[in-house]
Amino acid sequence: MKIKLHEVPRMPSGFSCGSKNCGMKKIEPDLSVFYSEKDCQAAAVFTRNQVPGAPIIYGREIIENGQLRAIVANSKISNVGTGEQGLVNVKKTADFAAKELGLRPQDILVSSTGIIAKQLPIDKIEKGLKGFAKQLRVDPLIAAKGIMTTDTHPKAISTSIDSATLSIVAKGSGMISPNMATMLVFIFTDADIEKSQLKLMLEKTVNETFNMLSIDTDMSTSDTCVMMANGMAGKIDLEKFEQGLFHCCELMTEILARDAEGATKLVRSEIKGAKNENDAKTFAKALVESPLIKTMAFGADPNIGRILMALGKCLDCNLDLQRVKLAINQIEIFAAGQKANYDEENLRQIISGDPLVLQVDLALGHASAKAYGCDLTHGYIDENAAYYSS
Amino acid sequence: MKIKLHEVPRMPSGFSCGSKNCGMKKIEPDLSVFYSEKDCQAAAVFTRNQVPGAPIIYGREIIENGQLRAIVANSKISNVGTGEQGLVNVKKTADFAAKELGLRPQDILVSSTGIIAKQLPIDKIEKGLKGFAKQLRVDPLIAAKGIMTTDTHPKAISTSIDSATLSIVAKGSGMISPNMATMLVFIFTDADIEKSQLKLMLEKTVNETFNMLSIDTDMSTSDTCVMMANGMAGKIDLEKFEQGLFHCCELMTEILARDAEGATKLVRSEIKGAKNENDAKTFAKALVESPLIKTMAFGADPNIGRILMALGKCLDCNLDLQRVKLAINQIEIFAAGQKANYDEENLRQIISGDPLVLQVDLALGHASAKAYGCDLTHGYIDENAAYYSS
Repeated sequence: MKIKLHEVPRMPSGFSCGSKNCGMKKIEPDLSVFYSEKDCQAAAVFTRNQVPGAPIIYGREIIENGQLRAIVANSKISNVGTGEQGLVNVKKTADFAAKELGLRPQDILVSSTGIIAKQLPIDKIEKGLKGFAKQLRVDPLIAAKGIMTTDTHPKAISTSIDSATLSIVAKGSGMISPNMATMLVFIFTDADIEKSQLKLMLEKTVNETFNMLSIDTDMSTSDTCVMMANGMAGKIDLEKFEQGLFHCCELMTEILARDAEGATKLVRSEIKGAKNENDAKTFAKALVESPLIKTMAFGADPNIGRILMALGKCLDCNLDLQRVKLAINQIEIFAAGQKANYDEENLRQIISGDPLVLQVDLALGHASAKAYGCDLTHGYIDENAAYYSS
Repeated sequence: MKIKLHEVPRMPSGFSCGSKNCGMKKIEPDLSVFYSEKDCQAAAVFTRNQVPGAPIIYGREIIENGQLRAIVANSKISNVGTGEQGLVNVKKTADFAAKELGLRPQDILVSSTGIIAKQLPIDKIEKGLKGFAKQLRVDPLIAAKGIMTTDTHPKAISTSIDSATLSIVAKGSGMISPNMATMLVFIFTDADIEKSQLKLMLEKTVNETFNMLSIDTDMSTSDTCVMMANGMAGKIDLEKFEQGLFHCCELMTEILARDAEGATKLVRSEIKGAKNENDAKTFAKALVESPLIKTMAFGADPNIGRILMALGKCLDCNLDLQRVKLAINQIEIFAAGQKANYDEENLRQIISGDPLVLQVDLALGHASAKAYGCDLTHGYIDENAAYYSS
């Protein structure tokens, strides 16, 4: 299935959104609202980090209803490690937004990303939300700006699947690891999808896409992926829609990887022939997470040893070195337990481009997996050696 | 117990060693020999990586006898991913050394570190070993030079424990992770220790020291820690000796961490009050392995959030945020679920020094653990973006 994105991303029917500066950042937008004029079926996946932010604790509760009307999201302060006051501030945010938008507080999800262990300036948020309803538009890129932290560009895509529209707005560039890390992903559609199906579909898709993304192995305390479906485009072919959702999520995963802190390229690992799915996923992640592979990607220096090392450190996975075939961007580099013959200069040329694709055939079974990451560069260190003070 | 190192490190009675250039590196030493004039009780711990080097495969076999007389170690080429020929070359190396030193090949351990998937130039090693016996001296620093890869200095320490001497020669600066990574550690003593006790003592000590070191989470295919005891100093107080061994291994662990690729400082995590030992070790490692903590260490920018995040990503460990107390170099920064009051400028000053010590009291039990790592800097990226070609 080929997905054709809209040249200019837009929100599905009945959805609108916007962003503004409410005074947490200097002048850039720091507060976004996503709104549906009709009730939505909704599902969400949150970080598994044991120190979840207050919005995660609150969000887990309200998503139980499987119903949402709006999302309020801020950047700059993540409201994590903020105790009781943090939870009070989430509820206040929902209350203020409910008042402004004419909704019930329990139909509003609150998301925050940014610095940890600092209280939200709730008065600024209250003031910021006043009059927001008038600012809502159909351009998701405007709302995407309000949730940026170290992202270098706002991230929104949309596509049509038959009569329905699917839109994804996201942010994320560091502290991103499997199981959701400071990654906020908001998915909207006007397709009519029943809430239990929406939940299944979202969880399955996230497992194969966003949860296979690892920027730095550090799992955020704020990760949230939420999906809202308002039904205004009517029933759709579920299977086709799910395929479209998968492709759009995979694409957004790659967009997030490419815009990771300091990244100059996407690194994708493709495992096949694994004995089971767990092995496939473990190997795939080990490759994109290895600092030595990440620096190799940056240096565009083909180093078979690092790939072997990263496979070998998956201690509990099935591996028979004699059967393993390795390729980089389709060029075979290792087979039958030995280095293959290839033109090293040519390989170096290929690796200097984007993406770097590491392909492993384990020849032990039929399971496969892909994982997504990026190179490790000076930029990552520059951004993270002084994030707090900036 | 206070350990006093010898100002000039030396080998224990009956041990000698040396290094020379045999033509793998340009002019620096690339081949080392460690020799005991008497039979030694011996034990070893090897990497658990599933793609072990040929010397590891061979070493696991011969160490079964619990007896060694010599170690031959080379740098520059690791003899990993080299198939049958790789194993043949290990055996040839042992044969050549046996001939030169007048020993049985099965009493010689072979170690290699360096580039993966490249065959050893066995003719150069054969030539290099000829006449080596005449070059053997008691200065371990000379032999330490022959096993350096990206190490910035040779590493050897020694101490006296009653009548016995204990010496450690080591190398390691990247691809180092728990469970032994390109870390070669050779431990020698003239104490008289029975082989089964030696094995127990070594495994226990390695678990608490070298296996708690993580430079970049990448587990080498060549890690080896071997200990030889020739008994020439007679029986010793085993308990006291084991304490001395622990302190020397901990010290060498910190020396390795400080000389890690690009590192400017040691990062040590100290966990106490964990519910069980597994939790304590998992939390300890998570802290020193987190790229966001490692870049924070480099930037000397105190960021409580990253410490909370790294604790929280230990999904299977027991954690109650309300009970957690965090301190950096003894300054409390978080307690009772909230940021503590501290002088941020003062903390910044302290963090800019070496070491950075992250202290966590989980207040859930009595288990404790320490882990050792370093900061993540531009130097790491420079070294690893172009290691192969250099």
